[in-house]
Amino acid sequence: MKFRRSGRLVDMTHYLMEHPHQQVPLTYFSERYESAKSSISEDLSIIKEIFESRGIGSLETAAGASGGVVYIPSASRDYSGQILRDLCEKLEDPGRLLPGGYLYMMDIIGAPSLVQAIGRIFASHYRNAQVDAVMTMATKGIPLAYAVAGHLNVPVSIVRHEHRITEGSIVSINYVSGSKKRIQTMSLARRSLKPHSNVLIIDDFMKAGGTVRGMMDLVHEFQSTVAGIGVLTEATHAEEPLVQDYVSLTRLSQVDERGSRIKVEVGNIHD
Amino acid sequence: MKFRRSGRLVDMTHYLMEHPHQQVPLTYFSERYESAKSSISEDLSIIKEIFESRGIGSLETAAGASGGVVYIPSASRDYSGQILRDLCEKLEDPGRLLPGGYLYMMDIIGAPSLVQAIGRIFASHYRNAQVDAVMTMATKGIPLAYAVAGHLNVPVSIVRHEHRITEGSIVSINYVSGSKKRIQTMSLARRSLKPHSNVLIIDDFMKAGGTVRGMMDLVHEFQSTVAGIGVLTEATHAEEPLVQDYVSLTRLSQVDERGSRIKVEVGNIHD
Repeated sequence: MKFRRSGRLVDMTHYLMEHPHQQVPLTYFSERYESAKSSISEDLSIIKEIFESRGIGSLETAAGASGGVVYIPSASRDYSGQILRDLCEKLEDPGRLLPGGYLYMMDIIGAPSLVQAIGRIFASHYRNAQVDAVMTMATKGIPLAYAVAGHLNVPVSIVRHEHRITEGSIVSINYVSGSKKRIQTMSLARRSLKPHSNVLIIDDFMKAGGTVRGMMDLVHEFQSTVAGIGVLTEATHAEEPLVQDYVSLTRLSQVDERGSRIKVEVGNIHD
Repeated sequence: MKFRRSGRLVDMTHYLMEHPHQQVPLTYFSERYESAKSSISEDLSIIKEIFESRGIGSLETAAGASGGVVYIPSASRDYSGQILRDLCEKLEDPGRLLPGGYLYMMDIIGAPSLVQAIGRIFASHYRNAQVDAVMTMATKGIPLAYAVAGHLNVPVSIVRHEHRITEGSIVSINYVSGSKKRIQTMSLARRSLKPHSNVLIIDDFMKAGGTVRGMMDLVHEFQSTVAGIGVLTEATHAEEPLVQDYVSLTRLSQVDERGSRIKVEVGNIHD
């Protein structure tokens, strides 16, 4: 099928968005559209200009015989600032307060478009970190982890508290839940993370950091390294946190259950 | 910022892809690009033609003062046929066989691009079903449910076996796990599904259908209706299944643990 430039631009934009962080050879596009490589190059420079000026992402081109183009989604500071301020405002709704000072967050984690935006922000932050896999803890971290992994084009490893017979052999470790000082177990299917991976840990909530600390230990059990740690919300905590290098999108600085007041600010991602 | 047609096409394609199943007024685009509505209409007809000819989806335009355009992602029969045949082949790998005749599937559920494709296939199938929410059971259904919900632009409700203090009041029901004939409990946070919703149930695996049957009962507890039921893999089962109207993408027709053979075919979605 022969395409005019306008049609190519629409189809290429769609294709690139569906294939982030993947090298696409120019020959792929020139065959797809029966067009000269020089025309494809011009198309790509138009897309690149728009993606960059709109803060959508960047297109990186590699020259040479194996030359191609890679779309790297990003989130501009304006974009993420807007998303994060809205998120803080939503989190400050006193209607979220549950007995024990817990916050109801499933409406936020249950909204796919917001979760995708959060995924884009984390993926943008770690876009040059050579991430091979994203790890998270079931259950609430899962949607966030997929949104990040989708933008980075890497697989997800889901850590669980309980064992499942449908996962084959597993690796388990004990860890101390930071805030409750209770020894718990977490496990990951042996097959679900390749050894020597560089792993980005994503979780929805971090208080003392015990769960994240456990996941870091689990990463090492797989002869792998930690590429980074991203949490949606961190709570301020009286003691020294068990984790130092992490990126938080929001910070719960005050939960006053009796006065029904919650104070939430943008996390350290914009520091 | 003033845009030429080529730039508008790139940016509009991106915008529409990020906002599926949402009405976008033409004035939004004409202000965004400082362009006449007539130019925007021409742009949209180019995008529409490409989206339709490539099987990406359709653009539906509504005339009048509140006129606008809605992008509805779809999956052509060619596209879904290819994805599903590849999936069957992957599932037939005897290396997946676990003791008890279970299959290891986390590599499939752990691959975001494949999960997105599966989500697009389900979302395309139910695109006219007026879905208000997607419901799934923790844990393995979650990635699939989000991929479907993202394409339909609706929220996700996650049903669990155990209660969580961070969810506020919950609605619980007992159900009979079909294959094991065991009474179990499933629950959903009261806040996580609006009453009078039309709910699409998505799960990774269905054997006798007890879990799906339980979710259907739970939907009714929320004064809601079932828009449809989609499962990634169904296993053939000796008894009459507890659920009739469902859509399966793949069907596990034979698991021979001793001979290390698995037979998988495309499910009823293409019947």
